[in-house]
Amino acid sequence: MRTRTQVGIIGAGPAGLLLQHLLAQQGVDSVLVENRSREYCEKRQRAGVLEHGSVELLKEIGLGDRMVREGLTHSGIYLQFDGERHHIDFPSLTGGRTLTVYAQTEVVKDLIAAGLAAGHQLHFEVSETAVRDIDTERPVLSFVDADGVAHEVECDAIAGCDGFHGVSRPAIPSLRVSERTYPFAWLGILATVPPSTDELIYAHSPHGFAMHSMRSTEVSRLYIQVDPDEKIEDWSDERIWEQLQLRLGHPGWTLSEGPITEKSITPMRSFVAEPMRHGRLFLAGDAAHIVPPTGAKGLNLAVADVKVLANALVRLLVEGKADLADAYSETCLTRVWRSTWFSWFMTSMLHRFPVESFASPAEAEFQERLQIAQLRQVVSSTAAATNLAENYAGWPLP
Amino acid sequence: MRTRTQVGIIGAGPAGLLLQHLLAQQGVDSVLVENRSREYCEKRQRAGVLEHGSVELLKEIGLGDRMVREGLTHSGIYLQFDGERHHIDFPSLTGGRTLTVYAQTEVVKDLIAAGLAAGHQLHFEVSETAVRDIDTERPVLSFVDADGVAHEVECDAIAGCDGFHGVSRPAIPSLRVSERTYPFAWLGILATVPPSTDELIYAHSPHGFAMHSMRSTEVSRLYIQVDPDEKIEDWSDERIWEQLQLRLGHPGWTLSEGPITEKSITPMRSFVAEPMRHGRLFLAGDAAHIVPPTGAKGLNLAVADVKVLANALVRLLVEGKADLADAYSETCLTRVWRSTWFSWFMTSMLHRFPVESFASPAEAEFQERLQIAQLRQVVSSTAAATNLAENYAGWPLP
Repeated sequence: MRTRTQVGIIGAGPAGLLLQHLLAQQGVDSVLVENRSREYCEKRQRAGVLEHGSVELLKEIGLGDRMVREGLTHSGIYLQFDGERHHIDFPSLTGGRTLTVYAQTEVVKDLIAAGLAAGHQLHFEVSETAVRDIDTERPVLSFVDADGVAHEVECDAIAGCDGFHGVSRPAIPSLRVSERTYPFAWLGILATVPPSTDELIYAHSPHGFAMHSMRSTEVSRLYIQVDPDEKIEDWSDERIWEQLQLRLGHPGWTLSEGPITEKSITPMRSFVAEPMRHGRLFLAGDAAHIVPPTGAKGLNLAVADVKVLANALVRLLVEGKADLADAYSETCLTRVWRSTWFSWFMTSMLHRFPVESFASPAEAEFQERLQIAQLRQVVSSTAAATNLAENYAGWPLP
Repeated sequence: MRTRTQVGIIGAGPAGLLLQHLLAQQGVDSVLVENRSREYCEKRQRAGVLEHGSVELLKEIGLGDRMVREGLTHSGIYLQFDGERHHIDFPSLTGGRTLTVYAQTEVVKDLIAAGLAAGHQLHFEVSETAVRDIDTERPVLSFVDADGVAHEVECDAIAGCDGFHGVSRPAIPSLRVSERTYPFAWLGILATVPPSTDELIYAHSPHGFAMHSMRSTEVSRLYIQVDPDEKIEDWSDERIWEQLQLRLGHPGWTLSEGPITEKSITPMRSFVAEPMRHGRLFLAGDAAHIVPPTGAKGLNLAVADVKVLANALVRLLVEGKADLADAYSETCLTRVWRSTWFSWFMTSMLHRFPVESFASPAEAEFQERLQIAQLRQVVSSTAAATNLAENYAGWPLP
């Protein structure tokens, strides 16, 4: 079946879904395809911290109602190390910026519901997704829909929002790839217990990194650093809570435990592919770059990419001007590298690196003491704290 | 020959010499021994940037006259990368702090001349220097003087200011050692040519790090990063200038060349031994910690150690109170780790890491792009620039 649209979008994550909304608002029609089911997309546990700019964008396009109602406003984080716990106050350091804790999975639910209600073309459970002719002005997005019908969609442009393992990035013939694989992973849980903290806790510990986040006033999200080759089956609930207590424990503070409803292990990687555009194929979000979760930048970076991309595509397809499309990659990459740096910085400062990573025990000792020195600087120097707060709270959207 | 003093000092570098002056001013007598000749000590090329606090201390004790006359006041540095050169203005970022460019070797000359004039006991060209009984209140410093006479000096305390390769640190039975050996070295030259710049230039380049420093208005000091196993014989003057031109080159700017009067290669290392005191033996400066030269912290850190040590020894030996001596190591180590962090930060941000250091070319690419992202942040964020400036310009002396 041969059809036609202006923009083919691959992937129903926050990037693809948000792009479809932004384009629709400017009268640009699109077809979005997604391998997974709607249910799968709506249940996938990912990030949970929205920058001010991301929140404002969702509100501007009328998709922020539930977020405003249910999201938790945070005004900083705790950094814990060497027996101390310090609050980094973002509003006082950044001229008033705050964060909103609202799960990515909830953002996705809101975007899908609104998209379906608005009659957007959204195809879940497709297969054999492919792109071709991206060097021409009529690239083709092909897929087989959930009923087994093969589609060929002739587009003006295609947006690859299909994540790290998607088909879009490999369709670009030549990319400059920068990558770092960290020698640890995150074991994350959801627990039905009110959070034991008012703000996120990032804990450096001799036993490895741990973090206390949250999903709502009733549900806690917690993480511990584990070896990248750990199997989730080897981690009983008891063992997880034991490590959380050990790493997050702090005098005069109690970590409340509760039933664990989900647990999984995620590898940690930094990855940047450049450029983010080839011909009429544009990459956005995880399809082009991955950050480790430590700085809460992944979702916010995808939102920023997509805002730039929507403007560039409207300019190209409505006004017939290619300037923003031509600048797309470069425009995004400034923020991408800033976020990549910050995510690397937070990750490197907070995790325990395995002794095997070093040439000698003295080099391992150096790394650990350096982390403590870095953390001490952040909590004792206004300049260092401001640098962290500005990066964490996020920069204005482009 | 058995003699007696209050403080035995090993090493006639800036740490040992300055300590002798500070003690003498408080009426504490000392014997200083040094393996090398006076001429050697006065010619050794080392650092050349003095923090405000170091300058003030030298002035306070009446040893700053020539420094004030001949030193060059600097108000920042240039950071060069990716075809750009940016000035980081320290006074505006730090509430007025400046730096003084005045070679360590000149400081040493001033300290030796003043010490000899004041009748300090200064023994050059000694051999067989050793310490014993450091667990008692009467440690012994033994050595053979230039005339072959063996000395046993009974002391109340001994200050190990004898650098990384000295005898003091190995005399301490148990130390916690943190270390990092960098996969590059600095090839440094002195050239008889007026500096081509008003402030120090730190240049990140695909060919490796380079730096333009200076000794005076007539003498330039320049460095290039080289492999740690390079031989100085393989570096002709032409080859050195070629690399300097390549790495420091900038549109509209000319690097003037001149006769090279000295060249040498120095390895790059971070090293911290803790604690800095065992019984009545106190380590100061390079004897306890080494920083790579990139942040100009080595000399200034030695000055800070020695100021703390002088106060602690006066308190112990004049007032009979051990509190400051007991706190010596911990008091110093806060600054030591701050400086260690900063020196690591500057070094890691500016040098090219050999591809062999990485698991893949994409990991090497990541490191280089991360450096550029970090540099771009320093030149575009006031908070990041302030953090660099505050660390570089130095904190008030304890």
